[in-house]
Amino acid sequence: MNLQAQSASGPSPYRILRETDLREYLAGLPAIVAQLGGAPADWSISEVGDGNLNLVFIVKGKSGGVAVKQALPYVRLVGESWPLPLSRAHYEHMALVHQARLAPDLVPAVLHHDGPLALTAMQLLEPHIIMRKGLIGAVSYPRFVDDISTFMARTLFFSSDLARGAAERKEGIAAFASNHALCKITEDLIFTDPYRIAEQNRWTAPYLDDTAAAFRDDLDLHVAISRLKLKFMASPEALIHGDLHTGSIMVTDSETRVIDPEFAFYGPMGFDIGAVIGNLLMAYLASAGHERTPGERAAFEAWLLDVVEGVWTEFARKFLALWRSEASGDGYPASLFTGEAGAARLEAERQAYMARLFQATVGFAAAKTIRRILGLAHNIDFEWIADEKQRAICEARALKLARSLMLEAPSFTTIATVTYAARELRHWQPHFAR
Amino acid sequence: MNLQAQSASGPSPYRILRETDLREYLAGLPAIVAQLGGAPADWSISEVGDGNLNLVFIVKGKSGGVAVKQALPYVRLVGESWPLPLSRAHYEHMALVHQARLAPDLVPAVLHHDGPLALTAMQLLEPHIIMRKGLIGAVSYPRFVDDISTFMARTLFFSSDLARGAAERKEGIAAFASNHALCKITEDLIFTDPYRIAEQNRWTAPYLDDTAAAFRDDLDLHVAISRLKLKFMASPEALIHGDLHTGSIMVTDSETRVIDPEFAFYGPMGFDIGAVIGNLLMAYLASAGHERTPGERAAFEAWLLDVVEGVWTEFARKFLALWRSEASGDGYPASLFTGEAGAARLEAERQAYMARLFQATVGFAAAKTIRRILGLAHNIDFEWIADEKQRAICEARALKLARSLMLEAPSFTTIATVTYAARELRHWQPHFAR
Repeated sequence: MNLQAQSASGPSPYRILRETDLREYLAGLPAIVAQLGGAPADWSISEVGDGNLNLVFIVKGKSGGVAVKQALPYVRLVGESWPLPLSRAHYEHMALVHQARLAPDLVPAVLHHDGPLALTAMQLLEPHIIMRKGLIGAVSYPRFVDDISTFMARTLFFSSDLARGAAERKEGIAAFASNHALCKITEDLIFTDPYRIAEQNRWTAPYLDDTAAAFRDDLDLHVAISRLKLKFMASPEALIHGDLHTGSIMVTDSETRVIDPEFAFYGPMGFDIGAVIGNLLMAYLASAGHERTPGERAAFEAWLLDVVEGVWTEFARKFLALWRSEASGDGYPASLFTGEAGAARLEAERQAYMARLFQATVGFAAAKTIRRILGLAHNIDFEWIADEKQRAICEARALKLARSLMLEAPSFTTIATVTYAARELRHWQPHFAR
Repeated sequence: MNLQAQSASGPSPYRILRETDLREYLAGLPAIVAQLGGAPADWSISEVGDGNLNLVFIVKGKSGGVAVKQALPYVRLVGESWPLPLSRAHYEHMALVHQARLAPDLVPAVLHHDGPLALTAMQLLEPHIIMRKGLIGAVSYPRFVDDISTFMARTLFFSSDLARGAAERKEGIAAFASNHALCKITEDLIFTDPYRIAEQNRWTAPYLDDTAAAFRDDLDLHVAISRLKLKFMASPEALIHGDLHTGSIMVTDSETRVIDPEFAFYGPMGFDIGAVIGNLLMAYLASAGHERTPGERAAFEAWLLDVVEGVWTEFARKFLALWRSEASGDGYPASLFTGEAGAARLEAERQAYMARLFQATVGFAAAKTIRRILGLAHNIDFEWIADEKQRAICEARALKLARSLMLEAPSFTTIATVTYAARELRHWQPHFAR
């Protein structure tokens, strides 16, 4: 269902807001006026969107601020030649409502949503910064493991067959099904393009030319990524965030907030968990490129690998705890696992379920890594390494790790085997033909 | 979306049709009048529904006949105490349209559909009989393997990620998502109840009392059936028929028609294929109970196992052929498998895909067998064996086969291993405590 189609006949009320329009619009919303304080004419408004898709305005008044996000009918990064449905703002809002109900302190509070304008006004996150930038600066975040594991355990568990009835889940799947233009971006840019010649691909040339060519010829990888793509397209395990990288997380020392769930739909849980872990592993292997003196970031890097381990371990612990205490879904009916023996067998199956989920997570973490080095959209973790050869060295390490994770996922049985593999590659020196 | 909710406000136009109403209703439909011929007053109308859910009328005129199916707002078998949405007629009609487009000669042609009345008029199938009845009479059907394998290969392939784009598939999944009341019947009656104490369960007592109790205590089985249930609920691989047993297939020597797809939704392909194979295996193991002299049905039984093998073999052959020639879906993009090496690797992956599908098929075949012997709805294959002990012997063989299939699915690597196991059990004598 295209949400735009729901509006009454006649000209669409959608228009791209400029600063003046926005000021006028917000002045008509009592809740926003109260949040901002002071006279509308005195509000400061600045457009700060540095993502690829939307407009983002920071509005500040006498007593407070709001962030206003408006979808554009095209991909901002590219322009009108790449149209993208406004309805993504509708799905983002639905996902935010889901997440706010389950993890209220871990997402920005929604203050106002306007469907026809594809606009959402949210709590302004201050002094939070994008986590990726903090990691590049070697800042560690003591709350992160606990917060992100809570966010994922609760949002994923409570939209799964373990927690919800099949009928309710089918209605949920249907409600997000038409967000497929956003899914298509993922399907192409993550699961297909990095493994073939695609105009939008780029990499740190010439150093990675041979590696990119090898990935395009690596049929084992092509089978593995194709299986992951099928899983992405047809495994509605939970309502996933869909784009849970460290650029979608804002942090301070004491707070974590997940933003930008416009890619949300019912998909495989491992895609979210793998996104977090893959991006942390990239931060780890990019770290060497940000050193001014050898070893100066060693403590930070050790912390990062602890975080990788903690993210999975704590996620699994919390997810299992929810499964043990709040399993009211149609999966694994309690009546089939009664008594002491039944409880023990179900617990063994829970562990087996987590092992299967871990395998998927490892695969998706690898997929997220490869696309950021050989595909269209790159991470500043690597991009901000000014020395191109040094950048390519860091990227080659990450690609080597990712290839191993994707092809040998079953041999990575615990998260410690993953961090071990990353640590082993920290000082590996690739040989570039050029 | 509840389709009933779409009708205009005011009293619902739905009413249960009696013979007189139906005659008047059909007389207003020129296509039906032309099909039947003669004066409406001379049409013969008889209600013949022997399924569990709906009214079915056979209407005959001077020159032809039609079958008219109307959904009731409850389960016919049980009555008004078990309500069931009329919208199932809408989903059945959508599924029939899908099937008729892909396998036009293998489903009854739809002549008329009335959404608000939850009514569909179809081509009358004459002199077809329900295949299950033919099999009980030891009749073999030379067209069956070719027809059912075509039906499944085409309806499943062309609604899969191998043939369709992800966006189109997501819209399809959403369009069938609200058929969840019918899915719920499957979830309960097939994947849960036979493995626990449930009021509606029955079995051939007292002979199978111990077996039924053992299945209720068999935690390995409970894990296996729970994994299959999860797969049923959250694997929208294709638009499946959803109830493809030998009672949903009408046959003559020269024709095969699949009827009654009201359980249709996007689910795992193996559920349909397993339904066919499981029901043929039941026909095979029930056959001994229909012997008047030992061995008189030996040739028929040998044919049945050939059919089991043929159903999988021909399905796999046709599905693979479609994949090789008509793969325009988003799964396994051609651009990742270019050149001779790519083609070879993709072909190897196709075989691996079929092996995974076969494992699921074996599991679902087992699930379909167990529910027909220990659950609510039984098959006349067994029920028509008047001697209860003899019936129990046949059923015990089928249960032993099914348990083995479900728990050791990975060891059944080819369909020949499945028919071998069935053949081995043909003369096995269970020992009943009572």
